[in-house]
Amino acid sequence: MVGSRSFWGWGFEAEHLSSSEQHQLGALVAPLVGADALEVVDPPSPSEITLPASRLTSPAALAGWSTTDDVARAGHTYGKSFRDVVRGLDRRWDRPPDMVVSPPDEQGIVAVLEWATDVGAIVIPYGGGSSVVGGVEAPADDDRPVISCDLGRLDRVLEIDRTSRAARIQAGVFGPSLEDQLRPHRLTLRHYPQSFEVSSLGGWLATRSGGHFATLHTHIDDFVESIRAVTPKGALESRRLPGSGAGPSPDRLMLGSEGIFGIITEAWMRLQDRPTHRASGVARFESFEAGSNAARVLGQSGLWPSNCRLLDAAEAMITGAGDGTAHLLLIGFESATHPVDDALSEAAALVGDHAGSFEVRAQRESGRESDGSDVADRWRAAFLRAPYLRDALVGLGLISETFETAITWDRFESFVSTIRQVTEDALRSVGAWPGLVTCRLTHVYPDGAAPYFTVIAPGRRSGRLEQWAEVKGAVMEAIAAEGGTVTHHHAVGRDHRPGYDHQRPQLFAAQLRAAKHAVDPHALLNPGVLIDP
Amino acid sequence: MVGSRSFWGWGFEAEHLSSSEQHQLGALVAPLVGADALEVVDPPSPSEITLPASRLTSPAALAGWSTTDDVARAGHTYGKSFRDVVRGLDRRWDRPPDMVVSPPDEQGIVAVLEWATDVGAIVIPYGGGSSVVGGVEAPADDDRPVISCDLGRLDRVLEIDRTSRAARIQAGVFGPSLEDQLRPHRLTLRHYPQSFEVSSLGGWLATRSGGHFATLHTHIDDFVESIRAVTPKGALESRRLPGSGAGPSPDRLMLGSEGIFGIITEAWMRLQDRPTHRASGVARFESFEAGSNAARVLGQSGLWPSNCRLLDAAEAMITGAGDGTAHLLLIGFESATHPVDDALSEAAALVGDHAGSFEVRAQRESGRESDGSDVADRWRAAFLRAPYLRDALVGLGLISETFETAITWDRFESFVSTIRQVTEDALRSVGAWPGLVTCRLTHVYPDGAAPYFTVIAPGRRSGRLEQWAEVKGAVMEAIAAEGGTVTHHHAVGRDHRPGYDHQRPQLFAAQLRAAKHAVDPHALLNPGVLIDP
Repeated sequence: MVGSRSFWGWGFEAEHLSSSEQHQLGALVAPLVGADALEVVDPPSPSEITLPASRLTSPAALAGWSTTDDVARAGHTYGKSFRDVVRGLDRRWDRPPDMVVSPPDEQGIVAVLEWATDVGAIVIPYGGGSSVVGGVEAPADDDRPVISCDLGRLDRVLEIDRTSRAARIQAGVFGPSLEDQLRPHRLTLRHYPQSFEVSSLGGWLATRSGGHFATLHTHIDDFVESIRAVTPKGALESRRLPGSGAGPSPDRLMLGSEGIFGIITEAWMRLQDRPTHRASGVARFESFEAGSNAARVLGQSGLWPSNCRLLDAAEAMITGAGDGTAHLLLIGFESATHPVDDALSEAAALVGDHAGSFEVRAQRESGRESDGSDVADRWRAAFLRAPYLRDALVGLGLISETFETAITWDRFESFVSTIRQVTEDALRSVGAWPGLVTCRLTHVYPDGAAPYFTVIAPGRRSGRLEQWAEVKGAVMEAIAAEGGTVTHHHAVGRDHRPGYDHQRPQLFAAQLRAAKHAVDPHALLNPGVLIDP
Repeated sequence: MVGSRSFWGWGFEAEHLSSSEQHQLGALVAPLVGADALEVVDPPSPSEITLPASRLTSPAALAGWSTTDDVARAGHTYGKSFRDVVRGLDRRWDRPPDMVVSPPDEQGIVAVLEWATDVGAIVIPYGGGSSVVGGVEAPADDDRPVISCDLGRLDRVLEIDRTSRAARIQAGVFGPSLEDQLRPHRLTLRHYPQSFEVSSLGGWLATRSGGHFATLHTHIDDFVESIRAVTPKGALESRRLPGSGAGPSPDRLMLGSEGIFGIITEAWMRLQDRPTHRASGVARFESFEAGSNAARVLGQSGLWPSNCRLLDAAEAMITGAGDGTAHLLLIGFESATHPVDDALSEAAALVGDHAGSFEVRAQRESGRESDGSDVADRWRAAFLRAPYLRDALVGLGLISETFETAITWDRFESFVSTIRQVTEDALRSVGAWPGLVTCRLTHVYPDGAAPYFTVIAPGRRSGRLEQWAEVKGAVMEAIAAEGGTVTHHHAVGRDHRPGYDHQRPQLFAAQLRAAKHAVDPHALLNPGVLIDP
């Protein structure tokens, strides 16, 4: 969580596995992917970066906070998907931005958009750069110069309304700094996507990020009071309201717009009191189906557990939550106002009534703020650590990626088994087998759930991008065909366009294009993401 | 609930107060508005309807289900606001539709839109016609012929998914019929706007209707899995999903679109199990502020009471919930899976901790479906009856209207007192005083609440529309200026356009116009509602 950001892989350099740790990991994983040994690829060093010359020269107005430095450009070329990390390890920087700008304020963003219009450049909003869907990279089929607009300097909480439990927050703030600024007020946004440490409020809003709560308030969407964004036609700011029925919600059009309408500069967000009462437990199931039935019953109960995450046996094992002999349902409740032990008991009773064989082990604590030592906090720490392991696996030459979706309960069982099968078959057909395809439920709804799949498989040292492209294509097609969503909370970006184009109503696409043209007539902003300009 | 619909006033003719009941009501109310006696205006009879000749002749394809009959046209001329009822009592039918069509299916709606395009007519979608904001009347400044498209024949539940607790439902179904069709499956939509008996699913969706739940799921929005609508460019149907992060939500653009994009034909809706556990109570407060503080604490507690409605003392008195000596907070919990007595106790403790003087009287019942005899059901019956009383007061020559808004807690107290004052001052300045301005909170959020105002005041027999227009204008301006929303759940229609135009971001208006043009290039659909075509 400290030190410099990696320019090619996840997060912070200091958090990356050391070479010896990586070798140890390799020895553990090799048998799972049918390998005798796995070789470590050395990470790239800044001196290995070679980029085409920038086509842009900063005007005076932007000079203080723009750069054409190669490391900055390389660091803003990609997000952090498997594909991105492989390209980084391959010392490959396709279509780097010509310039990286870091405006100090909203006026700076206005100046960037004006200048981009003048010079015919495109602008890619960049928060934490943790996109795993090609959301921050330049389009391959657009020859205009590229500006990466890094919001990192807009990192402050500007105003706090303690009575309404809300704050006006700049879009560039990352998770830890945001929570640090809220803590003195005994408030929290309580939004912990896996990218928490290296992603920003603006990014969460632009991509409809999925957060802490496994039920009820699953996405960042529900915590939005109002959004302010700068478009090429000017600023667009919604009114701060607790609820409204005045026409379609302006916020809901901006949420998930992935930078195509404007650059989000700040938002009024709904906050939580910091929880002081918690209760959690783990239910064990002999089958994933029994576990998902229990999750469904809990999701439909109106108890709204904050944690309700089902891990299949393999997922439980690789995340250290279990030993691989059972499927686990992690159940947790939290509150700032009242004890939640009864809610846990009620949840346990429901799970027992509906799910057959199970056991609940409750870890209860009350009356204090968490000191980081409880099960939920340990799970969260491991969860935040997972992408570093992913990078280490990629550094061992493996295919290591995740994908996620959502589906209604009526189709849930057959859907999960089909997607699992399609993934395994596709891995086999590209010669990336034996491997591991695990599943967990990240979010649970009354009417369905969000399955999240992790893939670890042997890749060809120089061909795993093509291998994965084929697998990913097959998976995306199956998800679309089977009625799922191409993404529950990873966003669309460029990588999910085929599935998204299939899923999205065609006339809605026409509406989106028209709405974009109304605020971005020259298609400066993130062209090719979500829709063709 | 049975018999014929009124063509000029609220709901069903048989439910209207008789002339003698109306006289009794007049005797009760007269002192409140400084009158010695109030005279009853006789309701209009069908024979008193005189309309300009229709400009449209049905083509063969529509002949079986279209009419130019005067009573049908008069009945589809207005919604059911104070202004509409006064015009009905005045035997005035401004700009009636030239034709009323009642398509039997979606193909019929397609045929209507095609024919309307051919003949250059506009089409106004009509569900239950209970709009109180001018949402179903023809624009004054548009000379095209007008077709009112009544969805009443699309009234069936088409498919039920018991596992996901969801149903595919035609848009024209009214509340009671919808619940009748769901009851055999032990499911309920649990959406009870005041118009429940005379409004439709499609209307609820198009106007972002506010429902049963006072906290958490306040609007119909949250219960939508997918929406299907017919636009002049074809059908638009979103994918049925429990949650998704794939771009801006298509449903959220359709929700609140008030018929300007398309005619909603069906939707997959999330349902509830019928509650069998309930607990409710009433807290009494010496001041409205103490009551609103308690409501705030409850709204922020995470207990999510299904009922959390604060009535000021006058509102409590006129609705029969209290004797006018105290402000009342009605608190209720319900569940289909677990007892909710503990939740009520926790709520009572919170209210007690934060709100000073109070008392809680709990009425508990468990283990059975409601038979209609509990407090919540009695309150609901009185609530559904209120618009008939409103009509009776209008029939006594009074100004009788409601308006509603929402505001964050930080500004709540000053906002409510300002709006109350502005309303009273405006009534005074048009000579409509003494009268009554009462307030209740219909919905409570963690970050704010939705105040709902009721006005009863003496009007000039032939000038009360102008009097009210002046008051309403002043109120709308004050709400916009003070940071509220022009409507929390009554919708925008034509009547709220000035406030809405003030409140809505200008660039969002440009996006809405562009999105409309993409699906309705000839501006057939409800032109002038929400935006100018």
